[in-house]
Amino acid sequence: MRHAVLGGGKRVRPLLVIESAALFGVASEDAALTAAALELVHCYSLAHDDLPAMDNDELRRGRPTVWKAYDEWTAILAGDALLTLAFEILARPENHPDAAVRVALVSALARSSGVAGMVGGQALDLMADKLGDPPAPTVEHIRRLQAMKTGALLVFACQAGAILGGANDKERKALMDFGAALGFAFQIADDLLDAEGDAATVGKAVAKDAAANKATLVSLMGIPAAKDMLARTEAAASEALTIFGSRGDILRAAAHFVVSRRS
Amino acid sequence: MRHAVLGGGKRVRPLLVIESAALFGVASEDAALTAAALELVHCYSLAHDDLPAMDNDELRRGRPTVWKAYDEWTAILAGDALLTLAFEILARPENHPDAAVRVALVSALARSSGVAGMVGGQALDLMADKLGDPPAPTVEHIRRLQAMKTGALLVFACQAGAILGGANDKERKALMDFGAALGFAFQIADDLLDAEGDAATVGKAVAKDAAANKATLVSLMGIPAAKDMLARTEAAASEALTIFGSRGDILRAAAHFVVSRRS
Repeated sequence: MRHAVLGGGKRVRPLLVIESAALFGVASEDAALTAAALELVHCYSLAHDDLPAMDNDELRRGRPTVWKAYDEWTAILAGDALLTLAFEILARPENHPDAAVRVALVSALARSSGVAGMVGGQALDLMADKLGDPPAPTVEHIRRLQAMKTGALLVFACQAGAILGGANDKERKALMDFGAALGFAFQIADDLLDAEGDAATVGKAVAKDAAANKATLVSLMGIPAAKDMLARTEAAASEALTIFGSRGDILRAAAHFVVSRRS
Repeated sequence: MRHAVLGGGKRVRPLLVIESAALFGVASEDAALTAAALELVHCYSLAHDDLPAMDNDELRRGRPTVWKAYDEWTAILAGDALLTLAFEILARPENHPDAAVRVALVSALARSSGVAGMVGGQALDLMADKLGDPPAPTVEHIRRLQAMKTGALLVFACQAGAILGGANDKERKALMDFGAALGFAFQIADDLLDAEGDAATVGKAVAKDAAANKATLVSLMGIPAAKDMLARTEAAASEALTIFGSRGDILRAAAHFVVSRRS
């Protein structure tokens, strides 16, 4: 469990929870448990996705993946325990004094990370890889798949800030729109890194998609069009935060970091 | 997910939730979502434990296990999604009108099924199987391991009834003591079935422990002493329910079913 969680990583999701909550005056300490719970879910998903039966990755954040460092069964159980721990943490009274807030966080995280969200997106992705004769992928299909696989947890990150901060419906929707745009930008940037980056900087294997002849947004659109869409998506993310004025600038900077990252 | 959940099974855990809650006048419909959530956790754990990297079982409830019927990655993701769905269901307003009750159920289920409970017990069990030169097992070690691996969810089942029913501390403790005794009885009965049963009746492979030269309560104590301990444990389970008088008879019957089962 420690190997899966404490090996670095960008901690983008906890940052988004804390900065979304900060829009409503929530102190970072008071958003930290929710932020940590979300990061546990992200790290469990990596431990499982890296397994030989799934993406078969041996390198993650410049270190061996959990199954490679230990065993497959350890990686499976560590992931299971991390997912479970995330819900245990959200439910703790120290997370928020109001049980209704805690249970809203549990519900939103479960919906984002389950079959209609992250796990479902991973399943769609693996179906394309593993089943014979998959349907010809379209930008629209890949976009939907990635909105589930990667986007849903980023939307939850921003939504969690709104839940912790007692946001009204308009504020919550603005944050979720921001999260969705950020998720899409994140995926385009990831595909561009795979197409253009080098393994030493990125910290994991690159050019995997091309080697596997796997359709991505970048392979379907071409690099110039993907870069253009990335810029437009970042602008849309920024636009979604208009109602927060300059208080949204840290989240805008986070979006810019995601778009510009080299690893 | 359907293959993992809808293939039969004894449904002992949902029965315990519903009958524990019934002690406090909770209608079975009002305990059904919690009961279902718990069964999803049980079924996810079977889908994962059956994987080649873990117990490598091909037969469960007389049918192929999830990985055998589909693929390993499907079994991993189906399990992940079932675990997540369990918490989503517990958090639903339809489960219980009081958010504090729902979040108490989330917390208790997460503690029972995580690293300090079911998943931790499975890890201890696999360590004994897979690591070279494990410590010589004792009855005490196996009992602790099984209390985590199997017992914790059975304790939760009874605890959940107490939470749903607004039990006082004494009533909750009585139900948890009953669940712990039942869990121990369940495990002795399981080991006896493995030692004495036949695969067609049991619905899964038997004599696996002996073939793997694996220490069990039965192999350490011998069959007669194990049967004696089983009878004494059933009596202890029944005794734990004394404060409920004859209202505890359905739970006593459930314990007797567990002790006497042939599959």
